[in-house]
Amino acid sequence: MGNNAIVGQSGGPTAVINASLAGVYESCKQRGAGKVYGMLHGVAGLMDRHIYLLDEKLKTTLDIEFLKRTPSSYLGSCRYKLPDWRGPGEKVYKQLFSYLNELDIGYFFYIGGNDSMDTIWKLSEYGRHIGSYIRFMGVPKTIDNDLMATDHTPGYGSAAKYIAVVMKELIRDATVYGTKYVTIVEIMGRNAGWLTAAAALSKADDCEGVDMICLPEIPFNVDNFVEKVARMQAEKPSIVIAVSEGVKLHDGRYVCELSDDVRPVDAFGHKSLTGTARFLANTVARKLETKTRCIELSTLQRCAGHLTSRTDITEAYQVGGAAGKAAFDGHTGMMVGIKRRSNSPYQSTTQLHPIEQVANLEKKVPLEWINEDHTGMKQEFLDYARPLIQAELTPIYIDGLPRHIYLPD
Amino acid sequence: MGNNAIVGQSGGPTAVINASLAGVYESCKQRGAGKVYGMLHGVAGLMDRHIYLLDEKLKTTLDIEFLKRTPSSYLGSCRYKLPDWRGPGEKVYKQLFSYLNELDIGYFFYIGGNDSMDTIWKLSEYGRHIGSYIRFMGVPKTIDNDLMATDHTPGYGSAAKYIAVVMKELIRDATVYGTKYVTIVEIMGRNAGWLTAAAALSKADDCEGVDMICLPEIPFNVDNFVEKVARMQAEKPSIVIAVSEGVKLHDGRYVCELSDDVRPVDAFGHKSLTGTARFLANTVARKLETKTRCIELSTLQRCAGHLTSRTDITEAYQVGGAAGKAAFDGHTGMMVGIKRRSNSPYQSTTQLHPIEQVANLEKKVPLEWINEDHTGMKQEFLDYARPLIQAELTPIYIDGLPRHIYLPD
Repeated sequence: MGNNAIVGQSGGPTAVINASLAGVYESCKQRGAGKVYGMLHGVAGLMDRHIYLLDEKLKTTLDIEFLKRTPSSYLGSCRYKLPDWRGPGEKVYKQLFSYLNELDIGYFFYIGGNDSMDTIWKLSEYGRHIGSYIRFMGVPKTIDNDLMATDHTPGYGSAAKYIAVVMKELIRDATVYGTKYVTIVEIMGRNAGWLTAAAALSKADDCEGVDMICLPEIPFNVDNFVEKVARMQAEKPSIVIAVSEGVKLHDGRYVCELSDDVRPVDAFGHKSLTGTARFLANTVARKLETKTRCIELSTLQRCAGHLTSRTDITEAYQVGGAAGKAAFDGHTGMMVGIKRRSNSPYQSTTQLHPIEQVANLEKKVPLEWINEDHTGMKQEFLDYARPLIQAELTPIYIDGLPRHIYLPD
Repeated sequence: MGNNAIVGQSGGPTAVINASLAGVYESCKQRGAGKVYGMLHGVAGLMDRHIYLLDEKLKTTLDIEFLKRTPSSYLGSCRYKLPDWRGPGEKVYKQLFSYLNELDIGYFFYIGGNDSMDTIWKLSEYGRHIGSYIRFMGVPKTIDNDLMATDHTPGYGSAAKYIAVVMKELIRDATVYGTKYVTIVEIMGRNAGWLTAAAALSKADDCEGVDMICLPEIPFNVDNFVEKVARMQAEKPSIVIAVSEGVKLHDGRYVCELSDDVRPVDAFGHKSLTGTARFLANTVARKLETKTRCIELSTLQRCAGHLTSRTDITEAYQVGGAAGKAAFDGHTGMMVGIKRRSNSPYQSTTQLHPIEQVANLEKKVPLEWINEDHTGMKQEFLDYARPLIQAELTPIYIDGLPRHIYLPD
């Protein structure tokens, strides 16, 4: 069987996805892998034979350190869904496996979210079907924290830290004039509110925290929302609200669909959500006597390499390394998850999960972690999330800017 | 004459405005000031006798260190314009001076931009008029970098660094799929393009930089813009553009006025600008076959205490200290400016400017620093701006978040 390895990145980037790549790379090399290739733009690029020999770029420990500190997908990404291999789609698999065999691949790693785990599931199933020796391992990655089986996902801790820090700064900024102001901050999360919930972490001795948190897990009512804002603003002038881009009405429509933006649909059938905060800010401004501001954290929240959680980067590196170990131990069709051993002191380890327990599924925020009037998070959530944002990994600043590693053209 | 001092903050917050406050405070104390008061919400709060004795809060060097690292105006801010003192408005001045005398104030400091310097101008003129001994000193502060006389303003370096770093991260994020994408990032700056120009600093060995920069100094033509984007996208799929919120058409209308948002006007007659990037992204999406995304850096760019320039913080502290020295030396009606001594190595010092050379005036980006086709900045700008973003002042992280100092309620 082949002794080379190949690794790809898929789905939305995170600030720590390359730390997992570093973990996979070093783990494979230490276990005696021959060449280690990277797929450019994931499995979509692989089908076009767009690969890169990582050994040519990752030569020193300094390269690895830069890789760990480089946000966004170093190898590029894709949103490509493999067809069903039972049927006419099989020709895609034949083509892929033929190329993998040509490259003498024994170990295949895919770093991504629940859509990407679908790719590992299908490839490993097809591999078993044809008796291939290639081991297919999933490495979890998503700022959304919506993967099943794992306690949390690499990428979440850094995005959560970014959100908590930025909310703290925005709250200060919003209160500076002492005037009536409603600031509505839109945070990513299509169906799961993990990221928006992280706004609750901004509360500390030196910050009163956000005034309201709206998660997609709770059906949204615009009138109730405006009423709550009015009630809060009777107590204090500046109100800061964290709202998920994915909040939905009782009838299932996204709140942002109430505005008039065009929404394209991607390969996985996801609507593009945007404009929730703007719609709500306009609505509040129209109904209440107050200035409003909407702020979309947009892609800033997933690419902020300058503000990461060291806990997150360390775990991202660890799951990559554990995936390498598992593949060399003979496992296939699995994803490496994180198992929490204790909260205080925080300790975690990795464990393997059959890929079908993860692929295409979504883990939502438990309803019992949301407070009674659906405006904030309970202590259970804070206990869960706080350890994940601890400590920092300082970028290496060159001439005033964080230095990244990049692929030659 | 009074031996107490009072200091206020006015206008939009910055990440380093409190470093200037620290400079004023320590400088006054070292020069034998009695009590040092802070105005809450600037001169507007002062009129309502909202003051705070800073000596009760700033007791240790650790307090000063937290203050330097706390973004947004520690004392609160206002956008209040003093009336003309020649006429019925004089009663406001009588009231203010009576209160200042009651507090035994000898030294009055105001940290702010060109609107705030109008306050110092009027107060110092009135002071001379009535023969008051109180010295009135302006301390420059604005992310906009649009003050006359001074080489640059404290607050600009940190905002410029934030923009350069974030643009670098956004460029990485935007190229990850290798697909056609136009990302338009909206940056603050009503009439002066200094902040938007800072996007040019993102270019480095590891980043190709932004593809286009649109400053308010250059009249904007929507059709030309779309045409340039089309031409650029013929060369490469992902285009990232930095556009000032203040770009205007040939007829003087703001581009954002072409969209349909409501725009209130503040006390200084400024329109609230927003929606420029959204309007342009929608226009490009409609006219060209490409996905687009608009990102507004919004208040994030002025309150990011987690990502500051140490050069900027140091200078912010220095101008505060120099203002204290100048007031104790007997100066009044002046603003402390920064004078650049050399670019390489970067060296600067402070100097005094009569306040009327600064108040109500705006310094724009020199047209000769903008390239021929109005899409980017020339080397002269980079040489000017690069020293200002050098080095970092790491926040003090407690439990995963930067710790700030705050006023007791």
